[in-house]
Formats: sequence, C-alpha cells, structure tokens
Amino acid sequence: MGGLSAAIYLARYGLKCLVIEKGKGRSIWMQNLRNYVGSSPNTSGASIIHHTTKQAIEWGADYLRGFVEDVTDEGETFAVKVKVRKKDSIYPVFRSQYLIAASGVIDILPELENMQNVYDYAGYTLHVCMICDGFDMWDQRAVLIAGEESQINAAFVLNWFTPYITVLTHNLCQLGNKMKRKLAEHGYPLYEQRIIRFIGENHKMSGVELENGTVVEATTGLINMGSIHNNYYLNGIEGLEWDNGNLVTHGMSQTSHERIFALGDLKKGLNQVSIAVADGTMAATQIWRNIRRISKPRKWKENIQAISSDQLTSHV
Amino acid sequence: MGGLSAAIYLARYGLKCLVIEKGKGRSIWMQNLRNYVGSSPNTSGASIIHHTTKQAIEWGADYLRGFVEDVTDEGETFAVKVKVRKKDSIYPVFRSQYLIAASGVIDILPELENMQNVYDYAGYTLHVCMICDGFDMWDQRAVLIAGEESQINAAFVLNWFTPYITVLTHNLCQLGNKMKRKLAEHGYPLYEQRIIRFIGENHKMSGVELENGTVVEATTGLINMGSIHNNYYLNGIEGLEWDNGNLVTHGMSQTSHERIFALGDLKKGLNQVSIAVADGTMAATQIWRNIRRISKPRKWKENIQAISSDQLTSHV
Repeated sequence: MGGLSAAIYLARYGLKCLVIEKGKGRSIWMQNLRNYVGSSPNTSGASIIHHTTKQAIEWGADYLRGFVEDVTDEGETFAVKVKVRKKDSIYPVFRSQYLIAASGVIDILPELENMQNVYDYAGYTLHVCMICDGFDMWDQRAVLIAGEESQINAAFVLNWFTPYITVLTHNLCQLGNKMKRKLAEHGYPLYEQRIIRFIGENHKMSGVELENGTVVEATTGLINMGSIHNNYYLNGIEGLEWDNGNLVTHGMSQTSHERIFALGDLKKGLNQVSIAVADGTMAATQIWRNIRRISKPRKWKENIQAISSDQLTSHV
Repeated sequence: MGGLSAAIYLARYGLKCLVIEKGKGRSIWMQNLRNYVGSSPNTSGASIIHHTTKQAIEWGADYLRGFVEDVTDEGETFAVKVKVRKKDSIYPVFRSQYLIAASGVIDILPELENMQNVYDYAGYTLHVCMICDGFDMWDQRAVLIAGEESQINAAFVLNWFTPYITVLTHNLCQLGNKMKRKLAEHGYPLYEQRIIRFIGENHKMSGVELENGTVVEATTGLINMGSIHNNYYLNGIEGLEWDNGNLVTHGMSQTSHERIFALGDLKKGLNQVSIAVADGTMAATQIWRNIRRISKPRKWKENIQAISSDQLTSHV
C-alpha cells in the first residue's frame, strides 16, 4: 500500500519510477479493511492493491512482478538485482537514484500439517493485528496463539477487547512460573499442546483442536507469533539505522541513508495501511524536492516584453 | 479526513467520541482525489466525507453538526462549547478527556464581485495545491494568483510542472525590483491589475479577464494566497507550541499538550489527505493506549483450574 502510494505521487511528480512487486504482501490477507478512510469496510486488501496498481501505471509508473534479490549502493545509484519468474528465471539489474523500501512484513503463522486449514481462517476470524481487528473480537471467546513467552503479553492488551482468552503455545515455548501465575490470576487458560486444526465453517472459527484431543471453544483468535521483515536485500547497505529489525526513519520517511526511504511495516511505528500510505506520500515528495532543487528551472521565454501574444501562442 | 480517521479508530477501540463537524472543510473542494490509495481517481472529497461519516457512526462514534466556539482546559477535562444551528442557535457544552483538533485550513481565494465565478473553477481547473494537482497542469498555460510577494515564489516550484506561467497579484501587493527581475528572467509575465472574472465553461478555464480589459490566456491556475487555520478555539489553551500558525506535533500526532492532538493541515507537515488520515490513526491509537494503561484489566475467572468447560460456557 505504501509503495503504491509512493508510485502514484512519483508518477504525478513526473518522475520515473519502477514498482517491483514481489506479491504476497500482508495486505493481501485482509479480507475486510475496516478502518481506512475512503474504503467501504468490506473492501479487501487484494482489491485495493489491484486497483491502485492499475492507477499507478496509468499515471505513469512502471511495474514489474519480481523478487529483489540484492541491492548494491554504487554511490550515485543503486544496482537492484531482480529475479523475474520462478521457472526459467532471468535476473535483470536496474539502476536508480533512490530506493523506497516498502516490502513490509510477513506474519508468522502456526505451522500445521494442512496449512490450507490456517488460510481458511486467517484474515477472516483468525487475526494477526489487534489494532485492526480487536473490535471484531469484542467479548468473544478468543485464542491467543504465541510462539514465545514474551508474545503472550498480548493477552493483557487483548483483554481490552475480550476477557475470554485462552492461550495456546503450539508446543513452541516453555513458560516461566511468573507468566503462568499471571495468566492464572487473569483466569486465562493455557494449553501448551500442539494445534492440530482450526474448526469451523465458511471461514468462521468455532474452536481449535489440540494434539491431545482437547477442543478449545473459540469463535475468534489472534496469532501473535511475530513477523519476518522482508528487508534482506538491504543487508549489505552501510549506514542504515535499525531498531529490532525495523528501519529507523526520520521526517519524510527517510532512513539514515539519504537515498533510502522506508515505509509502513518495514519501519518503526504502527503497522497500519493509513500509516504506510502516508509514508509513501512523504517519501515521494521528499525525493521530488531533492531532484527538483538541483534541476535547471524551466523558463518560458527570454524577454517577455519583446514577444507578442501571437508569438506566445505559437511558442506554447 | 483526519478527524474521521480518528473517529473510526476510537470507535473501534470501544472509546466514546464525539465528532463535531463544522462543514466546509478543504476536502469538500476536491472534485477528484487523484493521489489517494484506495479511491478511484475521480472520487470527490465530499463523497469520501459522506461515506466515512456514515461509517464512523456505524462503528459507534457520535456526530454533531456544529461550530466549536471555545475550548477551556479544566485540568482533567476540556469544556467544549459548541454553537449548533445558525438561526435559533443553542450552545451545548461537552466535556471530554482528550481533544483532537482536525479542523484544517480554509484556502484564501481571490475576492471577486461574483464569488460563484470563482467556485465554478476552484477545485476543477483552478487549483490550490500544487502537490495534489501540479500533474494536471502539466505544460499548460497557467496563472499563478498570489496575494503577497513571497507567495509568488511558488512560480519557481510550479515551473516543474509547466513553464508557461503568468503571475497575477489582483492588486493586492507591491513587488520589489528583485522579484520583478526574477520573473522577467524566467519569462513569466506579471499582471498587477485586479481580476474581474475567470473565463471558460463547464469548470474548464480558458482565461482570466483583468480590470483593464486584458484577457490572460490560461487553461489552468494555482491560487497561492495562503490559508486560514481553523484553530481559533485553541487560542486560550496554555502550553501549545506553534510554528507559523501550525501546531507542532511529536510522535503519534500529539501536540506539546499531552491531551491535545492535532491532525493534517492544522499541524506542520504536508497538507495531504493521506497524511491527515494517518495522523488520525496515530492520535486515536495513542489515546487508546493512554486510557488502556490506566484501566483495570478485564479478567475471565478467578480460578481456572476449578471451573469446568460447561461452567465456562455459561459464564460467556
């Protein structure tokens, strides 16, 4: 969403830009984007991506479906190596003056034997973002699925939306006594067994079946197993400031590298569509300012007094 | 746009909020919001405001059409005095813990005898925002209408989009020789006479008629006469940091007053819909965090071991 926002602005500033879309962004999971001004609450992330991509191309942005493998900072330019096509791949290298990193994160989901069972609920009643979907979990029986002990702390925020929380660890971590006591004090059951499958129909959860046959009743869930930042291609770049895997940005979405900007989930801050879209606006505008300020001003005519109105018309 | 974004988030955090809408926001002028992710490029500002207001109310926000006359900081709360109805007005006072200032700016337009003539073109081919609409002015003959000498400097940014610029001052200011020389060097004609009317049809400009009968050919225009910040109701609040009429905000759209947030055009930064919408997201989220952190946690049950599954069900 952020990258497409930047592309629309860059194109409308008359600047050449290439959008490299790897696909499978986090927004593709959103079946209903409920909190974004300008979209009906049942708009899907995929639909916005589809329409906005078309729009960016219409304004003049270039677009390539591919996978950025590596970026080299050449001083004045970046060399961006892209893998195109999974089979019979080709590896074109693009050079650009600026780089906008908008490749986001991918949420870690519990690994079940049948992943389709997870996909049947993820983004519908099984959520990954409390800010986005806490409201839709209101006072429902919910499972919180965590992969590390610290991730279980989300229970004590999720209880703003519902107190009927059961914690599942999918056999991924050991809990200390302090956490166990805190969960017990709050009355939140804890199950450490592996999850076998989510139960329900039409994307609506009714429960979770565990390895030992236990069925935990729940009509909704929050997966809080962390996320992977798609930023590997920046690993070789010097001078970038990081904070826990997030790029640190300053005003106008600029990183500590003056020609690299970072948007949305890739940087510190809220992982929300509205934030990513604003970040894209800022990055594109700052790049336009930088380029404009070193460009030769466009003049109309050398001596306005000496030119008649007819001549002006022909000039235009 | 920013206020409604905040309202959607606040409502979805389950917090009570009242949107006080004075109407006539800057976004109402936008006939086509071309650079916002998620909207078709021919969506009008008014249409987004209409649909988003409905959406915010559906999520649980309260809404009042009225005009905030005064805000008093009472320490724990604000007393917000609202004028409701232009005729037979009533003046209810609302109390709130937090205040989100999202009342934006109003662009100053050239005052003509027949203002309808201005409204016929403003927001269509006569623009007030170069970032939004510069692209749509590309290489067209454009008038730049300024009310102060410093505002004429916009010509040297507008020339990124078109060099065919004629500057009109509507007899509002005197230019120094330095500015006159700079305009002449760039070949941008200057007319200091009063504007009589905009010429064209179907919202499409073809020229501007001046007091002395001169007709300046132009198919588009940029009005850069400054704007009025709708922030008078904050005048009596102590502790707010200002910068040239804009509120200074820090992370999460918070002003230097910990219970006042400011969004979009009212604060320092880009005057763009995407920015205002993100600001609203941040303000609402920070308010939620503040309130949540001092709230009693919601527990499920006192002793989970002692309760059977059946009892849990009845509890829910």
